[in-house]
Amino acid sequence: MTETRVRFGILGCANIARKVSRAILLSPNTTISAIGSRSLEKATAFASENHFPESTKVYGSYGAVLDDPDVDAVYVPLPTSLHVQWAVLAAQKKKHLLLEKPVALNVGELDVILAACEASGVQFMDATMWMHHPRTAHMKEVLSDEQRFGQLKSVHSTFTFTADEDFLKNDIRVNPNLDSLGALGDTGWYNIRAILWAHDYELPNTVTAFRDPVYNESGVILSCGASLNWNKYRKLVTFHCSFLSNICMDITTLGTKGNLRVHDFVIPFNEKVGSFYAVADSKWAERALGCGPEPSEV
Amino acid sequence: MTETRVRFGILGCANIARKVSRAILLSPNTTISAIGSRSLEKATAFASENHFPESTKVYGSYGAVLDDPDVDAVYVPLPTSLHVQWAVLAAQKKKHLLLEKPVALNVGELDVILAACEASGVQFMDATMWMHHPRTAHMKEVLSDEQRFGQLKSVHSTFTFTADEDFLKNDIRVNPNLDSLGALGDTGWYNIRAILWAHDYELPNTVTAFRDPVYNESGVILSCGASLNWNKYRKLVTFHCSFLSNICMDITTLGTKGNLRVHDFVIPFNEKVGSFYAVADSKWAERALGCGPEPSEV
Repeated sequence: MTETRVRFGILGCANIARKVSRAILLSPNTTISAIGSRSLEKATAFASENHFPESTKVYGSYGAVLDDPDVDAVYVPLPTSLHVQWAVLAAQKKKHLLLEKPVALNVGELDVILAACEASGVQFMDATMWMHHPRTAHMKEVLSDEQRFGQLKSVHSTFTFTADEDFLKNDIRVNPNLDSLGALGDTGWYNIRAILWAHDYELPNTVTAFRDPVYNESGVILSCGASLNWNKYRKLVTFHCSFLSNICMDITTLGTKGNLRVHDFVIPFNEKVGSFYAVADSKWAERALGCGPEPSEV
Repeated sequence: MTETRVRFGILGCANIARKVSRAILLSPNTTISAIGSRSLEKATAFASENHFPESTKVYGSYGAVLDDPDVDAVYVPLPTSLHVQWAVLAAQKKKHLLLEKPVALNVGELDVILAACEASGVQFMDATMWMHHPRTAHMKEVLSDEQRFGQLKSVHSTFTFTADEDFLKNDIRVNPNLDSLGALGDTGWYNIRAILWAHDYELPNTVTAFRDPVYNESGVILSCGASLNWNKYRKLVTFHCSFLSNICMDITTLGTKGNLRVHDFVIPFNEKVGSFYAVADSKWAERALGCGPEPSEV
């Protein structure tokens, strides 16, 4: 037993759990002590494929993980429609909760989950990874720098990827019974978080959806966007999320004195380095044409 | 006399005319044969400061430029509210027309100008410089490449700069009698052109302004934006223009297979080189966390 490590139990073998498991195992203060799936065989294969410690217990049910006293916290990557059931049960079993996003189908469900966590005195955390990347704190420093960035005037955030035919037919994220929020829950979640993060979590007064979102035949959103407004100051804040466009993970923030851009805010292109681009106090060059005499140089 | 050069006359001594005059003089097939201002003194100083050829005729009125038989075409950088008057007169005097943007206060005025040009058999061109940068043609090639870019799914364009106190008080672009379109005419013009350019000039079916534009006390727009929609295919197309944010000149276009970004589309940062960024067929790295073990590397 490691005295200081948080011992995670994992509910299910979702694809995203492969990535988060790896992160848990790479972290110096966490480990995986149990995994449960409705299929014991699937859980066993998952534990092996993802190099879980030999000490990890493998269960043929989610409930067994929640009953294991060697589990301090559970990571729940189940389909969104199952969140409220399993998150509340986990809280009742006194397990701290790392809940995959989108955390719930609506605010009412989330309120139920939060109340259960509060009643049991356990920690709630949503699995929005980029919030915990060290780059994010550096970006916040830039945004908060009155001298360099000035007052925040606009935010535009985009998260898209092109889903293949198999995804658009079979993935849980386009299934109205499993993840009915579609692209809004899967990618727009990050855009909305980016916008709230840039606004220190002050909620907007209005949100206006753009016209013509794209739905699949079951009514699940495949592509959409919105603008957000705060009554007390005038800003231009928009986002776009989609399963129908090549990968784009942008935040562009404009201030009165500077700009900050990042092109891979959700999952940095490079595992070792997180880049962003900040400029301040930009000026026009006098009489610049922006076009050299030699088109061949362009 | 240069046989093959287009001989330009310039109406007025606007600041933008300094840049365009330089471009006319740098071009191998154009020259400046006349400049007119309401003040002869001002025109003389302008011609000297901007290194006009000694042969350039200097007039104390706009009308004299239009009457000069050695002028083939006129460049009109006058305030927008004066465009219809002087553009129509120029056309009637059989001068080809390079008209500064925004070309008119509304479509009705532009139609009058275009009719005058057509009646006189002279060429009309608006002074939207980036359209003629060789980079623009290269970008269009990328957008048109079905293999590399796929189908266009979204465009977001931003053009902003932070106007100083003097600009916000005195510049013609915030004066309701001179340039009542404000930031929409001065910077949004470029965004709208970028969007139409990306759509091969197919007009949208609807344009929806974002809430809460910023106006000055005279009702001139200082910051605004809109989304555009085409009925027959669902895209997400938005723009933002402003006098209140640090310089940003972005076009971000997403296709089903690729992305194209440019950060200085209006006036390239570098006079000799025009850059843009294109990626295609982006894929997720397997289990990538996007965060190295060493926060100090970030």
